[in-house]
Amino acid sequence: MLRRVAANVAVNSWKGNIFELDHKLIMSRQLHARRIEGVDKNIWVDFTQLAADYQVVNLGQGFPDFSPPSYIQEAFCKAVNGGCSMHQYTRAFGHPPLVSILAKFFGRVVGHEIDAFEDILVTVGAYQALFCTFQALVDEDDEVIIVEPFFDCYQPMVKMAGGKGVYVPLRPRVEGGKALTSADWVLSSEELASKFNPRTKAIVINTPNNPLGKVYKREELQVIADLCIKHDVVCISDEVYEWLTYDGAKHVKIASLPGMWERTVTIGSGGKSFSATGWKVGWAIGAGPIVKHLKTVHQNSVYHCATAAQEAVAQGFQREYELFGTPDSYFLQLPEMLHHKRKKLATCLESVGLQPVLPEGGYFMIADISSLNVDLNDPSTQDEPHDYRFVKWLIKEKVIRGERFRLN
Amino acid sequence: MLRRVAANVAVNSWKGNIFELDHKLIMSRQLHARRIEGVDKNIWVDFTQLAADYQVVNLGQGFPDFSPPSYIQEAFCKAVNGGCSMHQYTRAFGHPPLVSILAKFFGRVVGHEIDAFEDILVTVGAYQALFCTFQALVDEDDEVIIVEPFFDCYQPMVKMAGGKGVYVPLRPRVEGGKALTSADWVLSSEELASKFNPRTKAIVINTPNNPLGKVYKREELQVIADLCIKHDVVCISDEVYEWLTYDGAKHVKIASLPGMWERTVTIGSGGKSFSATGWKVGWAIGAGPIVKHLKTVHQNSVYHCATAAQEAVAQGFQREYELFGTPDSYFLQLPEMLHHKRKKLATCLESVGLQPVLPEGGYFMIADISSLNVDLNDPSTQDEPHDYRFVKWLIKEKVIRGERFRLN
Repeated sequence: MLRRVAANVAVNSWKGNIFELDHKLIMSRQLHARRIEGVDKNIWVDFTQLAADYQVVNLGQGFPDFSPPSYIQEAFCKAVNGGCSMHQYTRAFGHPPLVSILAKFFGRVVGHEIDAFEDILVTVGAYQALFCTFQALVDEDDEVIIVEPFFDCYQPMVKMAGGKGVYVPLRPRVEGGKALTSADWVLSSEELASKFNPRTKAIVINTPNNPLGKVYKREELQVIADLCIKHDVVCISDEVYEWLTYDGAKHVKIASLPGMWERTVTIGSGGKSFSATGWKVGWAIGAGPIVKHLKTVHQNSVYHCATAAQEAVAQGFQREYELFGTPDSYFLQLPEMLHHKRKKLATCLESVGLQPVLPEGGYFMIADISSLNVDLNDPSTQDEPHDYRFVKWLIKEKVIRGERFRLN
Repeated sequence: MLRRVAANVAVNSWKGNIFELDHKLIMSRQLHARRIEGVDKNIWVDFTQLAADYQVVNLGQGFPDFSPPSYIQEAFCKAVNGGCSMHQYTRAFGHPPLVSILAKFFGRVVGHEIDAFEDILVTVGAYQALFCTFQALVDEDDEVIIVEPFFDCYQPMVKMAGGKGVYVPLRPRVEGGKALTSADWVLSSEELASKFNPRTKAIVINTPNNPLGKVYKREELQVIADLCIKHDVVCISDEVYEWLTYDGAKHVKIASLPGMWERTVTIGSGGKSFSATGWKVGWAIGAGPIVKHLKTVHQNSVYHCATAAQEAVAQGFQREYELFGTPDSYFLQLPEMLHHKRKKLATCLESVGLQPVLPEGGYFMIADISSLNVDLNDPSTQDEPHDYRFVKWLIKEKVIRGERFRLN
């Protein structure tokens, strides 16, 4: 019933459809390993191609249509011109200046001392941090609780690790009319508790949530924390949009709750923090005895991350450390800028008859399409979910560039 | 009996020892997944720490102590200053300008048309290309033939994929005295053939070989190719040092042999090609029906690679495409430069009583230590292989900075 649209845009025009391949078998035996069965489909590949084919603006992917702040671009360029060492490998588990400032910065935020060299793994974006976490911790037949709606990669990553996703939905509170903001979407404590059992290895939360924009309140996180502690479960907390909160919503780190530092892997992103998604600098932070297992996966899959980009992100965090909480902090300026774009997008959606759910955080906005009475009888999409079909219909039938339209 | 030393150096001075961690269990259950058991030890972590502790030059790791050529540094800086798109995600399976020029460039080298969008996956260095290949193709209990001596990651990567490494050694030809160059190290066709069986999924070759420096001749590759075709086996060809050949040794791509394009994954490195290991741009090239499985692993582990570095490597290959075979080509200038360093290192080793094996290619040089009569009775290393013990003895007992010494 719901379909997300991004507040930031990019037109993607490359040819990137892997599903057009010739499927003839080259070899007489099965070529691929079983672990990748059922994880080959990808919504981004699919919709990016569709957007390119119909030459429409693609609002689906999480990256800005503006540049990173100039000071960090300059830091990157300075690093690139900074002599030999910036062009060669740096420390495998994170460039020393970067892990040092991350430890200092997040130690203050989370209220727990962070060891730069034991408790942090720098990764190729938050995406690889998630991968390392699932591969390191999830064994065959382990269960992983995933809160719906969720960033799409959690599902195939858990599957690739041999684990089983167990889903629990955020549900809109319906009392007194329609849900209007992401804060109206909540977990049922009873429903959540019912998902924990002795096979549960981890729960994945995402705050601010992609795609809903929900920013979990401390009390909501406490319910999750209590269950993690009670059932001896790891919490994987994807916090890549941590600086992007609106209307006074306050981001709280679940790792800062009593008893949670020891069992939480917190995942962050230089790309989302500094509007530089193409740099691919992310990290996982947690207690050393957990993070060491992530390092084992990292050293056998990627090993080093790009040096100069790490140096630039380190410079960025150094600056933010000094300016934290002041109006010059980019971590305050960025949500202020996106706050206005968010309002504009909501107005646009309302003007064509869609009902937006105003996000408290993040890049995305979802909209309720249940009131629309649209003929989705396209036989080419008949086996797909309703929201997929709706968006495809929108792309094929309704989006005429530059023309205003109403849906109903 | 052999221990490699690198022809290029770097002093590594960070604190990076993951084995000093507090091993207490945070949780009452086993924390890690079984797939990472036995793959946590890493020679680089171990020896990098030792080099730092004793403040000696670390010759072990494969990266240069000089900068990339200025034109490609400028291309990188231009990309970083090149506007918004260079800071954001590019195509997941490879930046379009990069895959386009790689297809054009290597299509000419391999003598087979390469589809830029189907046959190439750009990865976070060649290391991640290897990881994607093993994860995509190697299933539980598959056998993978690995030629010894080998780059250390093949072993844990195969193990992490659930596969079994089957080893076959390059052996020195002893007729007429000691082996003097890497060309004197050869595979026995019979021994190699005896390793293939119905469980064999793939063979990994590495030419020029790390650490030996062997550059496989066409006839040697043909023996391997014939066995791959006969037994329906994939060939994973790690060719990251392809431009670094000396004394007229000619690098041949096994994918260019008849019947091999369809079953070879060729792995290359922008870092090794342009002396920019810290950029972390690599690739896997092969037939689309194989590469699509690597893409599945990539999209569930890393997804995007850094954009600006890909743009710079694309510029570099464009230039090399135009200058190919001329004296202005960096791919000719680089081996010419390292050729002299290689001779110097060989002379150094000889001057202290070690017998170097002169490499035909690559960054590394191994030396025969069998004639040395050294007391290696250090109890702290008693369970380790002889070459590990020798190098540790060398670091602890013999290497005094700035002082010339003889070993025997």
